[in-house]
Amino acid sequence: MADLKGRFGRPLRLGIIGGGPDSWIGGMHRGAAEMDGWWRATAGVFSSDAARSRAAGPRLGIDAARSYGDVTEMLSAEKARPDGIDAVAIMTPNDTHYPFAVAALEAGLDVIADKPVTHDFREACDLVARTRKHGRLFAIAHGFSSYPMTRYARALVRDGTLGRIRLVQVEYIQSGLATRIEDGPQNNRLRWLLDGQRSGLALVMSTIGCHAQHLACHVSGLNAARVAADVCALLPGRTVVDYVSALIEFEGGARGTFTATQAAAGGENDICLRVYGEKGMLDWSHRESGYLRLAIQGEAVRIIGRGDTFLPADIVAAGRTPRGHPEGLREAFANIYADVAQERMARALGDTPQHLAYPRIEEGAHTMAFIEACVASQSKGTWVEVAKLPLAL
Amino acid sequence: MADLKGRFGRPLRLGIIGGGPDSWIGGMHRGAAEMDGWWRATAGVFSSDAARSRAAGPRLGIDAARSYGDVTEMLSAEKARPDGIDAVAIMTPNDTHYPFAVAALEAGLDVIADKPVTHDFREACDLVARTRKHGRLFAIAHGFSSYPMTRYARALVRDGTLGRIRLVQVEYIQSGLATRIEDGPQNNRLRWLLDGQRSGLALVMSTIGCHAQHLACHVSGLNAARVAADVCALLPGRTVVDYVSALIEFEGGARGTFTATQAAAGGENDICLRVYGEKGMLDWSHRESGYLRLAIQGEAVRIIGRGDTFLPADIVAAGRTPRGHPEGLREAFANIYADVAQERMARALGDTPQHLAYPRIEEGAHTMAFIEACVASQSKGTWVEVAKLPLAL
Amino acid sequence: MADLKGRFGRPLRLGIIGGGPDSWIGGMHRGAAEMDGWWRATAGVFSSDAARSRAAGPRLGIDAARSYGDVTEMLSAEKARPDGIDAVAIMTPNDTHYPFAVAALEAGLDVIADKPVTHDFREACDLVARTRKHGRLFAIAHGFSSYPMTRYARALVRDGTLGRIRLVQVEYIQSGLATRIEDGPQNNRLRWLLDGQRSGLALVMSTIGCHAQHLACHVSGLNAARVAADVCALLPGRTVVDYVSALIEFEGGARGTFTATQAAAGGENDICLRVYGEKGMLDWSHRESGYLRLAIQGEAVRIIGRGDTFLPADIVAAGRTPRGHPEGLREAFANIYADVAQERMARALGDTPQHLAYPRIEEGAHTMAFIEACVASQSKGTWVEVAKLPLAL
Amino acid sequence: MADLKGRFGRPLRLGIIGGGPDSWIGGMHRGAAEMDGWWRATAGVFSSDAARSRAAGPRLGIDAARSYGDVTEMLSAEKARPDGIDAVAIMTPNDTHYPFAVAALEAGLDVIADKPVTHDFREACDLVARTRKHGRLFAIAHGFSSYPMTRYARALVRDGTLGRIRLVQVEYIQSGLATRIEDGPQNNRLRWLLDGQRSGLALVMSTIGCHAQHLACHVSGLNAARVAADVCALLPGRTVVDYVSALIEFEGGARGTFTATQAAAGGENDICLRVYGEKGMLDWSHRESGYLRLAIQGEAVRIIGRGDTFLPADIVAAGRTPRGHPEGLREAFANIYADVAQERMARALGDTPQHLAYPRIEEGAHTMAFIEACVASQSKGTWVEVAKLPLAL
Repeated sequence: MADLKGRFGRPLRLGIIGGGPDSWIGGMHRGAAEMDGWWRATAGVFSSDAARSRAAGPRLGIDAARSYGDVTEMLSAEKARPDGIDAVAIMTPNDTHYPFAVAALEAGLDVIADKPVTHDFREACDLVARTRKHGRLFAIAHGFSSYPMTRYARALVRDGTLGRIRLVQVEYIQSGLATRIEDGPQNNRLRWLLDGQRSGLALVMSTIGCHAQHLACHVSGLNAARVAADVCALLPGRTVVDYVSALIEFEGGARGTFTATQAAAGGENDICLRVYGEKGMLDWSHRESGYLRLAIQGEAVRIIGRGDTFLPADIVAAGRTPRGHPEGLREAFANIYADVAQERMARALGDTPQHLAYPRIEEGAHTMAFIEACVASQSKGTWVEVAKLPLAL
Repeated sequence: MADLKGRFGRPLRLGIIGGGPDSWIGGMHRGAAEMDGWWRATAGVFSSDAARSRAAGPRLGIDAARSYGDVTEMLSAEKARPDGIDAVAIMTPNDTHYPFAVAALEAGLDVIADKPVTHDFREACDLVARTRKHGRLFAIAHGFSSYPMTRYARALVRDGTLGRIRLVQVEYIQSGLATRIEDGPQNNRLRWLLDGQRSGLALVMSTIGCHAQHLACHVSGLNAARVAADVCALLPGRTVVDYVSALIEFEGGARGTFTATQAAAGGENDICLRVYGEKGMLDWSHRESGYLRLAIQGEAVRIIGRGDTFLPADIVAAGRTPRGHPEGLREAFANIYADVAQERMARALGDTPQHLAYPRIEEGAHTMAFIEACVASQSKGTWVEVAKLPLAL
Repeated sequence: MADLKGRFGRPLRLGIIGGGPDSWIGGMHRGAAEMDGWWRATAGVFSSDAARSRAAGPRLGIDAARSYGDVTEMLSAEKARPDGIDAVAIMTPNDTHYPFAVAALEAGLDVIADKPVTHDFREACDLVARTRKHGRLFAIAHGFSSYPMTRYARALVRDGTLGRIRLVQVEYIQSGLATRIEDGPQNNRLRWLLDGQRSGLALVMSTIGCHAQHLACHVSGLNAARVAADVCALLPGRTVVDYVSALIEFEGGARGTFTATQAAAGGENDICLRVYGEKGMLDWSHRESGYLRLAIQGEAVRIIGRGDTFLPADIVAAGRTPRGHPEGLREAFANIYADVAQERMARALGDTPQHLAYPRIEEGAHTMAFIEACVASQSKGTWVEVAKLPLAL
Repeated sequence: MADLKGRFGRPLRLGIIGGGPDSWIGGMHRGAAEMDGWWRATAGVFSSDAARSRAAGPRLGIDAARSYGDVTEMLSAEKARPDGIDAVAIMTPNDTHYPFAVAALEAGLDVIADKPVTHDFREACDLVARTRKHGRLFAIAHGFSSYPMTRYARALVRDGTLGRIRLVQVEYIQSGLATRIEDGPQNNRLRWLLDGQRSGLALVMSTIGCHAQHLACHVSGLNAARVAADVCALLPGRTVVDYVSALIEFEGGARGTFTATQAAAGGENDICLRVYGEKGMLDWSHRESGYLRLAIQGEAVRIIGRGDTFLPADIVAAGRTPRGHPEGLREAFANIYADVAQERMARALGDTPQHLAYPRIEEGAHTMAFIEACVASQSKGTWVEVAKLPLAL
């Protein structure tokens, strides 16, 4: 890996879209990108207000000359430079993900985008098509799927440790909407979140549900085929969706359960995944993100920890701190950036990259199909098919 | 309590139906009944084979003269004695619960029955009617609902600690059917379990699912109004139901999720309940049955343990061992027997019994309605209403 | 096992010494003895007041004719009966354990005694000598050492799974003396406990510390050779010992740490044991008494649970409830009684009993030597040798 | 805080001593310093080989002109610049901490040093004297004491939540020396660690024990007054110390226990702290670094998590990620750097800094006195007084 970095000769250059000085997610993206030296945040657009955007860059350590007033300006100016950006990272309000991603792809750049990647499945399919047409990379910032231990869970499923998968359970329980914050004072972020035109089809799916769905599908390697869903507001009188629970039939027949809510007063930020196969089950909880519980029928339960010496090299490489010392979401985000960088550099150098587990645009499209199917199931009161990527793609 | 026992002057006399010398559940029932001196196992029928039944009694410490060949014989012989039994405990194969319960009620006895209490909702309604008509007590052996900490959970819901309930989640995950035991050698118990005519409408509901449903409804104080359910076999080709997952709408609008499976290879015996209200949530797991997690929005999470000095008297009385020493399912069963005895003695003495939380026949009827609705939802592919007790009752 | 019971033809007859109707530990002993049908509580002395003793028996289900006024009376009367008692269980205040045990041994009976078994090491050696001289069995009621999972821990050490032992850590942290209860109203039990002549050399060692020391030595198979100890009262001005912490060198050179306190305000009843060897470590906590954590260097941590199918037969037999259902201290106590019964019946039938792990009088003698060495280390301020059983024994 | 940064107008400039491109701890220090924008790593000496040092800087993003050949060169060159460094961070082998710290203090710089800060107590007292004489800041990199939840533990002790402290227990159990690595191939780091002249008085104290001692004293606010210690090698024939366990009497009479070992085969990296006072106890484990367990006698146990809304502002500020998302050791390190920067900037601006909990040189001196006392106790076999800072300081 270090070799790859050395042979490529320079960090990749990242253009930031969104994530100004007061943005938590902005700090996470920049810190993650730069953590291991794969990327350098080089240019950016940090606000929809051009003057504020230009002023924000230097506060974040970005050269003033490369702190742009809008995305179009950045893309054309950077294209004109011999040392122009290699990729963009998009962390703006949800309704702008799609147009900015299109613009970046058309400008020949790779994209790392926040979730949900688009407003609907149709837009997401379009991004799949453009990504493929231009031969670019398109990653989605699903941090939970990028912890060393969720990646190892995926590896255990793929290598058959669990046998044929029977059942996948995922949930994300949180208290972000446990009180009627829609009645109180609202900051900018809250305003666009509470506006369904800007945040997406079902609020709780856009904020946290898509993470849970992605984690389940990414680790199990299964796409949802049919769902029966309960999509509603647990708070009386609320007009936005704060609860989705779904029964799932995956392609191939395995079953699943999915629950996401932000209306859990007292809930913390509990993401739990369990995958059951014919030989045994695995269990991961965000609360103990550095550990994975593996229970094979007839054997003692095993607790596998980040840093265990028997882990495969790509999982070891996804950790940065010795066994037993905790790491956090920051490092999980950094794994996405590290993977994209490695695939980009490997391609440039003619290598074949391997074991790169970052979430891709095709997975983002499945997320949008899943959300649409849940919403449709609610309105029909029946099971609904989940749309598949068009064969033409 | 001791006072009640003293004033009544003798232990209640229990007639056992089922649970011979090799039966685990038989030992649990007898040990639970006698643990605190409320009951004495006095008579019994221990096998469908009359000779085996009569021989079994003395091995269990039951007088040979009161070890009967069948239930009819026991009920009439005991009725004729001045020191005849006060109640029966039924722990036979599921298809006999109903006829034996009818016979006992008609003989003027109280009943403690194993679950599921009948084959269907109609039979259960009939038991409700007979119990009321004869003024008897009818308890169902749901041990999980009878731990001190699940009883305290119920008390917290009732006293409004959580506020209006928004969501109830329950699951029971187990490995008892994780392999194709239907293809191997079968003992007597397995034979009748695998026969749907004898075990009930949906196997996993009869074995463990009804415990989970009861726990959710008993603690939350809510009955299910509508369900959308996935009822199937996770093992390819299996003809019995090993998996049920359901979306629930409770009366009053709260939501719920329910999952029960015995096909979880590697799963232990994991029963988890979470109840979410407008003020906070509570969380109980069978794995740590002596503790309850209470999270009120904006406050530190509290871990409440059996034996905590601030618990109300009836919860304290449901434990027998000092704080920090573990108790087990045996003691939870004993709480059901203790409650029934106290209600019976209190009535006999003209007292008003209080805080008696044992599971009653009306709850058993709701269980049967829930199972029927899940099965109907599966066949229709839609949400289905859960039947209510007839108003005439 | 059942075969042994059948061949012997009757339950063993137990004479109770102490443990009247209001005694928690009395109920534990009687319930444990009778749980599996190995014993029947047949006779007893329940109070130092003869009239109260005779009255108490029938309330506990003991025949009035065999509810005696004092121990001497019981031993001689039972000796005269053809169906006299086989053993006594002693659960009186600590200062009477020794004389009652001597009397029982001299009467040709087996003994199950509560801890600490005597006031000092000299008395304990005398009990070892008498037990051997008369060819009797002498068990000490250390319940924590008798859980299936602490027994399995002992088996793992004995079979070399951990390799040569390097370090043993044990602690018992509790709040029973966290406040100045010596200043408040005192019941009978508290009165004799607070009197060092009656309760023993160092209060906290007599109440809980001896359990922790026994657990460490029993599981590791090691006796302490030298100690440096801090023996004091954590509450200012207190005259009884509420805290003992010791550094230990075991025979053979392994090290140990020991801490017992009842002055831990907020503490629950936390008993933890860890044993470290050259290959790995094991970890058991009373809080999760049904599980054992085994960590072998270079392998995934394993969580082994009561009921796991790969456990050896004697460990399986020490559990009574299916995998995943909790058991408690009551069942651990029952394992001691089951073991003593099996050894007694096996001897009577000419069998060779195996895998009987109950705590024996020799271990009780080591406990007394350990307590004396801790007290001596405190007064000298140096390391002190722990006395060994005289070679003459 | 942001205000402080803004008013000061620039990040502080940090000179790195040690921590080249292949050093894990180097990456931790630089990442922690720069995480929140308080510091910028500006200059450095990265190797004892001048050429390698100069070459390393640019690989780490340091200007070649400020990548020096040795410390003397860096200190004089930076002194001559108008934009010279404000402080040094020392992460070299242990025997060089003292001379480099002296040089930096004499050059008028603040110091952040790795542990153990010197070879012995005498040297540490000298650093205290120089720090005070020059009016500098001197922090020691004890990350475990700098998690939000260990800082909150300290606050709870200080504000009297636990009442008068009775007992402090700390341990650090690890497997870094569980096998005879001294017999295998050794890299540079291992070579100097295994050389007592370079690593310090007792190996395990220098590597991990000093962290545990610091955590106990920092949180409890108590210094050790007397110790009785067992200082040895658990591996037969080993010549370096891999195990220290100590009984502690703190100033004021509270008791303590301390255990540190790297010979725990199978052990992970388990640091646990418990503090017991007259009102209750608190419990923190590195394994769940984002949570703190607070048990007040007579109340429910409380689990307090980073991000809980009721936490005081300085504890909230020590976290960077929303409630429920894990953070790691990287962020704990960053808290030390943030504190030093705030104190430095506040002083420069004439503000009074508050709630700055970073570990200071006086604490480092106590660590050295503690280590010396443990070693002396081992050789004498008795309790030994822990030296105090000379009154003259």
